Amino acid sequence: MIVVAGGSGSRMGADLPKQFLPLRGMPLLMHTLANLHAMDGSMRIVLALPNGHIATWARLCADHAFRVPHDVVAGGDTRFRSVQHALNMAQGSHLIGVHDGVRPFVSKDVVERCFRAADEFGAAVPTVPVIESLRKMNGEGSEVVDRNDFRAVQTPQCFRTEILVSAFATATHDRFTDDAAVVEATGRHIALVEGNTQNIKVTTPLDMRLADLLIG
Amino acid sequence: MIVVAGGSGSRMGADLPKQFLPLRGMPLLMHTLANLHAMDGSMRIVLALPNGHIATWARLCADHAFRVPHDVVAGGDTRFRSVQHALNMAQGSHLIGVHDGVRPFVSKDVVERCFRAADEFGAAVPTVPVIESLRKMNGEGSEVVDRNDFRAVQTPQCFRTEILVSAFATATHDRFTDDAAVVEATGRHIALVEGNTQNIKVTTPLDMRLADLLIG
Repeated sequence: MIVVAGGSGSRMGADLPKQFLPLRGMPLLMHTLANLHAMDGSMRIVLALPNGHIATWARLCADHAFRVPHDVVAGGDTRFRSVQHALNMAQGSHLIGVHDGVRPFVSKDVVERCFRAADEFGAAVPTVPVIESLRKMNGEGSEVVDRNDFRAVQTPQCFRTEILVSAFATATHDRFTDDAAVVEATGRHIALVEGNTQNIKVTTPLDMRLADLLIG
Repeated sequence: MIVVAGGSGSRMGADLPKQFLPLRGMPLLMHTLANLHAMDGSMRIVLALPNGHIATWARLCADHAFRVPHDVVAGGDTRFRSVQHALNMAQGSHLIGVHDGVRPFVSKDVVERCFRAADEFGAAVPTVPVIESLRKMNGEGSEVVDRNDFRAVQTPQCFRTEILVSAFATATHDRFTDDAAVVEATGRHIALVEGNTQNIKVTTPLDMRLADLLIG
């Protein structure tokens, strides 16, 4: 599993990048890695971190005596570049996933379901219903759209490795913010599997408080 | 302000409709009404409740000695019908808003901003950015869309009263799930104003726990 932790934390209003903020005394990102490791102790974890955060992460791991095995690669300027760097290191298995570092609550069921669907269909992402009404912005204003026509996409986004590698190798730009979109741009269908609603992306101080609740 | 409380609570996994579930000992819906009343003691509140819930609500108001002044109207089978019934009762002011009964945390700023924009432009809704990636479902599968092209819509949705009344009178169907969409169907532009992210729609047990946090 590639874990991408590239956020600057600006939405969190904190000096530390959000993935390093403490949750019950341990950086958020460690919760994410520990959760994945607890599902499957043999899962290889490759963590893509911005260059400027690698030393901080090493210090945090030492301070917390963090024992979850993982490799660290330097991320890039964009999510696309970060995943691309990690892919160079993460090959070797038949399937691969890309997970947000700030999603510590994905369930084992969802991860297994995604990998199974990726094995069968080539590419799969977990999704949940959209709760709020949606409006689509256009040149002059906006228009309502039917939220039932949309799904909110979580991670891990899972793929047969050869498909993800090939999609990243042939991508014509690096502005993708979603890994499945890179694969989709090659014309391949993306399977949708049901996600767990607790698999929130922790991006605001309010999310941190919710995360504290979710730890239980 | 029309407050619509028509949910059956099926997503909450509880017997009581979600708007009646207790939050710090008081039904969620009472928090919503109390919040609106605290912003502006002269705000007229018309509450649309399903027929089958009106007696329960009356009993709850008595049990809790709930003193926020409001009128109750019987809702309809759909949100459209509920708002339509409430509109018959709520006319008389220049501006009108429609608010979800399960949104107890809208800020005074957002409500004022919406009414100001409704006064100026005729129709206005509060929106917040979409945090998750979005996929649009189509006949065969789905495709990624740019979440930056979308906004999540909250309530209150605010209007010049004459515009909302006229839109409801001329609507050609009743399957709208969003009041602004009824107005938009008449060809009118909807102004977007910035919402507050804490203005969550409380629809799941997890939301109830988050709501408990938000009360502070």
